[in-house]
Amino acid sequence: MILLHHLRVGRSLFTVWLLEELGLDYELKIYVRNEQGRAQADLREVHPLGKSPVIEDGDLLLTESGAITSYLLDHYDTDNVLAPPRAEVKERAIFTQWLHYSEGSAFAPRIMKRLLMANPDQRPALITGFANGEVDLQLGYINDFLGDKPFLLGDRLQGPDFGMSYIMEMAGRFGQLEPYPALQAYLSRMTARPAFKRACERAGETERAG
Amino acid sequence: MILLHHLRVGRSLFTVWLLEELGLDYELKIYVRNEQGRAQADLREVHPLGKSPVIEDGDLLLTESGAITSYLLDHYDTDNVLAPPRAEVKERAIFTQWLHYSEGSAFAPRIMKRLLMANPDQRPALITGFANGEVDLQLGYINDFLGDKPFLLGDRLQGPDFGMSYIMEMAGRFGQLEPYPALQAYLSRMTARPAFKRACERAGETERAG
Repeated sequence: MILLHHLRVGRSLFTVWLLEELGLDYELKIYVRNEQGRAQADLREVHPLGKSPVIEDGDLLLTESGAITSYLLDHYDTDNVLAPPRAEVKERAIFTQWLHYSEGSAFAPRIMKRLLMANPDQRPALITGFANGEVDLQLGYINDFLGDKPFLLGDRLQGPDFGMSYIMEMAGRFGQLEPYPALQAYLSRMTARPAFKRACERAGETERAG
Repeated sequence: MILLHHLRVGRSLFTVWLLEELGLDYELKIYVRNEQGRAQADLREVHPLGKSPVIEDGDLLLTESGAITSYLLDHYDTDNVLAPPRAEVKERAIFTQWLHYSEGSAFAPRIMKRLLMANPDQRPALITGFANGEVDLQLGYINDFLGDKPFLLGDRLQGPDFGMSYIMEMAGRFGQLEPYPALQAYLSRMTARPAFKRACERAGETERAG
């Protein structure tokens, strides 16, 4: 059975959601952060970086949300419900681009912004300017790409929606989605899904459900 | 023919290197940064984020280094020289994990560190502490994982070595590799490869060759 190491509160809830959408049996091991918001020794024993999500499946121990999504879909979504078949090379390339995007380009300015907001007395102009500029740029880009589609890649839920929902949740928590009603509606659609609600219940984080 | 939009100086040199290792024909379009180190309007016309690398292959326009690596290998490395076959599910999962890692977990503290170093008069304790702690954590982790292997994943060059070399180059430029002779030697091995040298020549960046 799949074991998911889940650090609350953070991005791994979106991996719980993926497991729920896939209808898989899994065990959830829950960790809590220290006062500084970091993982503690218990999670660092699982993986030296103390990051989450981490999954174990047989003798495979895997980190990085996007890689976990890829693995779970390759291995357990054999009917290609949540991903285009690999034979559809270009669709799959765009799918993979968005899988990387949520953890790559979109995330660095988010963590900067979070650190800046946690320490309002120290906001160096260069970092603040970079983070604010990037946040606007990224949200505008996502908003344009989403357009009026119900899901990021079209008319059905796919792998990149999981990571993107985390980015949207973070942005929403900081009030950054107000200029983007389409992104707010997207996040609401994702968090209102029955599988997302089940994930929140399972993780004991029902306050995050839509 | 593949068209690579290459912003100098930055990470896309490592995509040029990948194209050289694959022995592919490609066209290189070179862009330069403005005084603030950002992409200019010419690159934003190609892609709204103004990021690089961006590749075009037929009617596919693709961003995100890790996704570009995945696509190029899926499509052009059909003998699996630079990646384990997809049928080797666990090896491929670990390969994908490291492909994500370079752009995800490893990159966010790097860009913070770069911004902090560009502005030595303003170094807020929280961000500096986070960035320094993460840099040490990440480099120690990579060093332990690499061990005495010649390449990140074993005895041959594979997809994740391209993104990891960029992380190592950035770390080396800031003097952060000094405690890690194995990482220094790894970077030297990568940048001494004939294909890397060809990439530097093609991009007009011979100063980056080992």
